[in-house]
Amino acid sequence: MNDFFTTRHTVRQFSDKPVDNRLLLQMIEAASHAPTTGNMQLYSVVITRTPEGKGALAPAHFNQPCVTGCDVLLTFCADYNRFIRWCEQRQAEPGYDNFQSFMTAVIDTVIFAQQFCTLAEMEGLGVCYLGTTTYNAPQIAEVLALPSMVVPVITLAVGYPAAAGKVSDRLPVEGIIHQERYGDYTSADIDSIYALKESLEESAKFVAENDKQTLAQVFTDVRYTRQACEYFSKVYHDFIEKSGYKFPKQTD
Amino acid sequence: MNDFFTTRHTVRQFSDKPVDNRLLLQMIEAASHAPTTGNMQLYSVVITRTPEGKGALAPAHFNQPCVTGCDVLLTFCADYNRFIRWCEQRQAEPGYDNFQSFMTAVIDTVIFAQQFCTLAEMEGLGVCYLGTTTYNAPQIAEVLALPSMVVPVITLAVGYPAAAGKVSDRLPVEGIIHQERYGDYTSADIDSIYALKESLEESAKFVAENDKQTLAQVFTDVRYTRQACEYFSKVYHDFIEKSGYKFPKQTD
Repeated sequence: MNDFFTTRHTVRQFSDKPVDNRLLLQMIEAASHAPTTGNMQLYSVVITRTPEGKGALAPAHFNQPCVTGCDVLLTFCADYNRFIRWCEQRQAEPGYDNFQSFMTAVIDTVIFAQQFCTLAEMEGLGVCYLGTTTYNAPQIAEVLALPSMVVPVITLAVGYPAAAGKVSDRLPVEGIIHQERYGDYTSADIDSIYALKESLEESAKFVAENDKQTLAQVFTDVRYTRQACEYFSKVYHDFIEKSGYKFPKQTD
Repeated sequence: MNDFFTTRHTVRQFSDKPVDNRLLLQMIEAASHAPTTGNMQLYSVVITRTPEGKGALAPAHFNQPCVTGCDVLLTFCADYNRFIRWCEQRQAEPGYDNFQSFMTAVIDTVIFAQQFCTLAEMEGLGVCYLGTTTYNAPQIAEVLALPSMVVPVITLAVGYPAAAGKVSDRLPVEGIIHQERYGDYTSADIDSIYALKESLEESAKFVAENDKQTLAQVFTDVRYTRQACEYFSKVYHDFIEKSGYKFPKQTD
């Protein structure tokens, strides 16, 4: 097997070389041939190339430098708006204002975004996923003028890499697969699966820099805290509902 | 650009040729190098190869023939279980029992599944996504013995294609992109974006077979009805919550 896929890596610093606009559209077009539920293509992508546009989106991404430092910023949105508009113009009554439809659109959107990412990397471009998209969706929607039923899910910063990047570690494949049934992990399994990651010099550096005892604490206490996860759960949940996808009533 | 990506297509019928187990693991391993949030790899994949295992999963997928007809069935799950177990063994207090964390794990899972799909297609295998995974998650979880914090998101049927497949149509790329801001669609835009799809012989056949007036009605009245979407919204929502991801309290 081609080692292209095992040596790919995130790029956060980009050169000044612009991405040809025709190439960008070709890659988006090619990515749209990725699988999509019922061939509905429940997504849209907003292309941000102007410094003003990137600057307006930067705060929503906590001013990560790659937002203004990239050549092209792409916001991939779960989008039932277009499909519903089509239904309404064709004497059809859409019933997609619900959680299941939202999830279908999210899956379609992520498949499309990841296919774009692969295509871009194959063209020698570098890509960075911004996890902040599901945090600050309301601000992103405002900047991009998203209508109802259009919810941002993924943002990619795209451009030519400024320098050679670093391939990051992954868990041993045995740690993520299960044969026939999910064999739940023993304590020894967990120790073994995370041993490589914990042994890396980079990990020791993270632990020391953050004044923690373990690498896991860097995640729970610094990078992805309960407080932030719960706060942004509420923000995203309420935004999705405000966009027109109703969650089922909760049964206590 | 290579036309591999624009000519790919879903495969639903598979030959008897088995997928080499070493190749399968290599592809899963390579796919795990796809981007993942904070390098947390919030997913697992359950591999079903036995006829008994596929047979047990078939009803959850409404007995689509490719479930028992494929060589390998892969269930990709959003999985915070492994990560939380690690945190707990490392004196770290995880705060991932919430909607934002669920969405993060879903995005990770779909990226991983789609990278696997691309790798498999590059190896000459055929793949079919089963949208039923988010419908009947409770039954799938029971068959696969999924613990808390593990939610099925995507199922792929994988095998060598039995015959040459058909490339399906896509909307014109102008229909899915927006420059700088989301330019909402006019009625004329919608007509134009859906014109090709509506003109296909296959679409006319769908409309006639289902005794409908428009193609959109085939979607709203037959394929993805309000009743089914709402029913499965509730099923998936309640399953996610039962698995341990709490949704924020609704504010009326």
